Amino acid sequence: MKLFHSPFSPFVRKVTVVAHELGLAERIELLPSAAHPTQRDASILAVHPLAQVPTLITDEGHALADSRVICEYLDALAGGGVFPSSGPARWTALGDQSTADGLLDAALLLRYELTVRGEGDRSVAWIAGQTAKIEGVLDHFEAGAEALADRVDIGTITVACALGYLDVRFPDLIWRRRAPGLGRWADGFAARPSMEATKPPAA
Amino acid sequence: MKLFHSPFSPFVRKVTVVAHELGLAERIELLPSAAHPTQRDASILAVHPLAQVPTLITDEGHALADSRVICEYLDALAGGGVFPSSGPARWTALGDQSTADGLLDAALLLRYELTVRGEGDRSVAWIAGQTAKIEGVLDHFEAGAEALADRVDIGTITVACALGYLDVRFPDLIWRRRAPGLGRWADGFAARPSMEATKPPAA
Repeated sequence: MKLFHSPFSPFVRKVTVVAHELGLAERIELLPSAAHPTQRDASILAVHPLAQVPTLITDEGHALADSRVICEYLDALAGGGVFPSSGPARWTALGDQSTADGLLDAALLLRYELTVRGEGDRSVAWIAGQTAKIEGVLDHFEAGAEALADRVDIGTITVACALGYLDVRFPDLIWRRRAPGLGRWADGFAARPSMEATKPPAA
Repeated sequence: MKLFHSPFSPFVRKVTVVAHELGLAERIELLPSAAHPTQRDASILAVHPLAQVPTLITDEGHALADSRVICEYLDALAGGGVFPSSGPARWTALGDQSTADGLLDAALLLRYELTVRGEGDRSVAWIAGQTAKIEGVLDHFEAGAEALADRVDIGTITVACALGYLDVRFPDLIWRRRAPGLGRWADGFAARPSMEATKPPAA
């Protein structure tokens, strides 16, 4: 398999953490990319119209975009491991994934606002709205940090990747001061070999 | 079950179409909402930190945000029907869903750009980037319109809801001129009772 990759993308990191947890990392060749919200990467665009990372090319030559679909595909390929197959555990894991993905969507929109746009094109209300969403999700997981506990599934993996992204891209947010219990959980999770192997470079 | 609802949201429509296809629509009470990217809806926020539509409250009182998770939850509740359980059919359906969701994400960002922001805060490059993504996805499904054919699954439902959203919110795009084969497919799909029952009001 081949994976269009970007070392700072938290959605790429979800996929590579999952690959490590499932023992599939060595079967995936990483392809460099220059995905960008306004300048589209021609090499990804040649295989998928969203031209985003992560995009996986399967051994059968099919292109799959979107970290959620790719992670579940890898899970099926490995015969399961990080997606609970049914029942409350599945909805908890998928729900936590979507909540943490929501934090990441807001964080990426905030980053685009502050780096892709010219200063004159920025919106104070937009910045405030995305920041409030990030803080609300932090408070949610802080209140439920005990429920994350020792779970290793697509939900906790996504939460850990989301928090790792805030560490690298939004150090000024000092999220650990807002959510100290979640910080302790994240420190423990970050010691997993899958997280160590996929750590982003210093910003 | 209760569903935070907005008559124009294409992601809400995915959920309600799925509910109709699965025979679950009458078990879902629709709750009005005022979800907005910069002004958060307090009634949704009380149950979920993303404060977005769709958000489902299950009969057990759990809140699930995100159309993908909610649709799959409803499918499991009904014993299956719109999510192929495994194999190539599952990846095709989930892949089409994520591609059409990607079109919708771009369309919503474009709409926010043009309606939520003041004229002075708009970015020409951002508008061009989101428009290119929409057009790329249209071209992709136009080239593969025959593969949509008579499939009724989460992939085709999402494509149909995405195209319905363009009809209502971006009539000036005249997407059917760009993708006439897809337009014929969409017209056929739009005749399904699930689509008729969930048609958005005129803009």
